[in-house]
Amino acid sequence: MAAATNGMCASPAEEHLRKAIGWAAMDPSGVLSPFNFSRRTNGDDDITLKILYCGICHSDLHTIKNEWGITKYPVVPGHEIVGVVTEVGKNVTKVKTGDKAGIGCVVGSCGSCENCKQDLENYCPKIIFTYGSVYHDGTRTYGGYSNMIVVNEHFVIRFPENMPLDKSAPLLCAGITVYSPMKTFGLNEPGKHLGVVGLGGLGHVAVKFGKAFGMKVTVISSSPNKEKEAIEMLGADAFLLSSNPEKMQAAMGTMDGIINTVSAVHQLMPLIFLLKTHGKMILVGAPEKPLELPVFPLIMAGRILAGSCIGGLKDTQEMIDFAGKHNITADIELIKMDYVNEAIERLAKADVRYRFVIDVANSLSAA
Amino acid sequence: MAAATNGMCASPAEEHLRKAIGWAAMDPSGVLSPFNFSRRTNGDDDITLKILYCGICHSDLHTIKNEWGITKYPVVPGHEIVGVVTEVGKNVTKVKTGDKAGIGCVVGSCGSCENCKQDLENYCPKIIFTYGSVYHDGTRTYGGYSNMIVVNEHFVIRFPENMPLDKSAPLLCAGITVYSPMKTFGLNEPGKHLGVVGLGGLGHVAVKFGKAFGMKVTVISSSPNKEKEAIEMLGADAFLLSSNPEKMQAAMGTMDGIINTVSAVHQLMPLIFLLKTHGKMILVGAPEKPLELPVFPLIMAGRILAGSCIGGLKDTQEMIDFAGKHNITADIELIKMDYVNEAIERLAKADVRYRFVIDVANSLSAA
Repeated sequence: MAAATNGMCASPAEEHLRKAIGWAAMDPSGVLSPFNFSRRTNGDDDITLKILYCGICHSDLHTIKNEWGITKYPVVPGHEIVGVVTEVGKNVTKVKTGDKAGIGCVVGSCGSCENCKQDLENYCPKIIFTYGSVYHDGTRTYGGYSNMIVVNEHFVIRFPENMPLDKSAPLLCAGITVYSPMKTFGLNEPGKHLGVVGLGGLGHVAVKFGKAFGMKVTVISSSPNKEKEAIEMLGADAFLLSSNPEKMQAAMGTMDGIINTVSAVHQLMPLIFLLKTHGKMILVGAPEKPLELPVFPLIMAGRILAGSCIGGLKDTQEMIDFAGKHNITADIELIKMDYVNEAIERLAKADVRYRFVIDVANSLSAA
Repeated sequence: MAAATNGMCASPAEEHLRKAIGWAAMDPSGVLSPFNFSRRTNGDDDITLKILYCGICHSDLHTIKNEWGITKYPVVPGHEIVGVVTEVGKNVTKVKTGDKAGIGCVVGSCGSCENCKQDLENYCPKIIFTYGSVYHDGTRTYGGYSNMIVVNEHFVIRFPENMPLDKSAPLLCAGITVYSPMKTFGLNEPGKHLGVVGLGGLGHVAVKFGKAFGMKVTVISSSPNKEKEAIEMLGADAFLLSSNPEKMQAAMGTMDGIINTVSAVHQLMPLIFLLKTHGKMILVGAPEKPLELPVFPLIMAGRILAGSCIGGLKDTQEMIDFAGKHNITADIELIKMDYVNEAIERLAKADVRYRFVIDVANSLSAA
C-alpha cells in the first residue's frame, strides 16, 4: 500500500515516480486550472498511454462542481480517453507500443465478484473509476484531462486503425452507456422500433447505433428545433415533439424500447405510453430527485423500466469494434485545453453538437 | 348485435334467453344483493359452466365501490370461477360435459392483434373482462357471484381431477398474476432468490410457486406477526421486516427478483436495494397514486422494474397444470353467499388468511 494509506500523505506531485501534467478543479467552483501531479511506473500488467484526445462528459461537470456531494479535490476529470500506447508491461498481451487505444470510465474492479465474473465490471461493488476513486495502492485516480495515464491492461480498449480518435473518444462513455442496454435488452434487432429521448451526447450516438442495428429510430424531444438535425443529420426515421399531445397519442404503443438519456427531473408518463406490450424504457440519465412513477401504465401492458450504467469491458470492446465496422463516431467540437472552462459552461447550457473533445496532445503544456 | 347496441335497451333479466341469478352491487355503496339477470344461449364455440365456487379478489372490492371510477352498475363481480361443464357447443374440443373447469379474469379478446398472437390476451387492447365489460354482442359481462356462466371455450381452463376446486379458484386471478411474471422474467429457476412483498392473496401463492420452482423465498412485510405464518405455514425460507433498517441493509443486493404485491402507495426505495445487479422487481399491485422512483438505485446496478397484469390463457392453463402437479392451492376461508358483504368489509381490512371463496352452489338461491 502506498502513501495515502500509510499516513505519509505524499502530495499528488510526489506520490508516484512519473511526473504528469493536467488540468484540475481545486474546489466546488469547478474552475479548472493547470495541475502538476504524478503517475505510477508501468507495472507488469500495465500499459502507459500518451493521451491524444479526451471527451468532456456531463459527469465531469457534475463532479468538478461537487453536485453529487462526493467529490474529493483536486480532481482531474476525463473518462473518454484515447491515445497511443507508449509502454507495456511484460505480461501485457492486449496491445503493443504504438497501438491506438482508449480508456473509459473504469480502471479497476475486484475481478472476483459475481458481476466481474459476468463481465459486468461496471457493477462491481469495488469499482475504481478513472478519476476521483481510490486505487488499489491507496492513491487517488486522475482522469484524462492530462498528458498520460497508466492502467492495468484489462481496462484498455483497442481501437481499429480506421477510426478517427478524436471523434471516437466519446464512445468510451456516451457510446457504451447506450450500446450496453441496447444489447442487454434486445434493442439491437433489425425491424424493431427504438425511441431515443433527449438528443445530446448520449442520444445522438444512440440514434446512430439504432440505425446501424437496422432499427426504426424515433427521436423524442421537447425542442422542435431538434427535428431537422435528428432526421437530416443523424438519420433518424421520425421525430416526436413530446409537448404535442396529438402526436404522442398517435405514437402510443408503437415502440419496442426507449433509451431515455434525460438527466433532469421529467415526467415518465407520456413516454411510458409509447411502449408496446413488454416494451422497455432504459434510464441512463440520473435525475437528482425521484421521478413520479405511475404504476398503472406499467401494469396494463407489462411494460419494463430499467436503469443502466455504462457497460462492462467486454461490451465496450465489442461496441468499439462494431462502431469501427459501421463508421460510427460522435459528432464533436474539438477544443484546446485552455478553452475547457468555457466549454463546460456551454455544456451546462446544452450548447454543443454533441460533445466537446479536448485536443490534449496539441494544447496541453507544462504549467 | 344484441339489445344494448340497437337501442332496445332490454333489461339484464331479458336481454338473453337463459335466466341466471347472482349477487350484484347496484351503486357505489358497493353493497351486494340478490340479482336476477340472464345469460346467452350456448353457442357452437361456447361452454356453459355451473358455478361451484368463486373467489373474492381485491379488484371486486375496487369495482363495486367504483374506486377506479369506471364501474357501470349493476355489477356482478367475480373472476375466480370454478365449476362443472354442463353444456358444450358443437365446435368445442377443450372440455366435455361433466369436466371440472374454470374461468379467470378474461372472457374475450380480438384474437388477431400482436398480443393475442403471442398468447397475451391479457394485454389485448380489446380485452373483455369477465365482469363489467361490454361483450362482442353489445351486452354487459357479469361475473362469478352467480349460478352459471357461458363463455367461448378459448377462455376456459381445464382443472386436473386431483385439485380441490374451492381452494383452486383463487389461482385463476391471484395465481396467474404472480405465476406469469415469474415465468416471463425468469424468476422460476431453482436456486434463485425470490423476494415476495406483501403476504395476502397474491403473496402467499407467490411463496408457494417460488418454493415449488426450487427457489429460496424471502417474505418482506411491514407486519412482524407475518413472520411465523410465512415460514411455518407457507414454507418461506426467510422473513424480512421492512421496517428494520439493519436487516434490510444486510439483505441488500441478494435477490434475483421481487414480486411486489402491495397495492397501496409505498416506498420503492428500500426494496429496490434488495435486488442484485439486473435484478427485477415486478409490480402486480396498482396504487392509485404515482410512486416515488429514485433513479440512481436502478442505474447503479442495472436494476429492472416492471408491471404485470394477470396472464394469457396459455400461461393460465400451464399454471393450473403446474399447481395440480405440485399440490399448490390457495389458503382460503370458505363462505356462504349471504356472508359476502361482511367478507368484503373484512377484506378491506386485510382480515383474511388469505382468500375468501364463496361456496356458490351450496348457498346461492333464487332471489
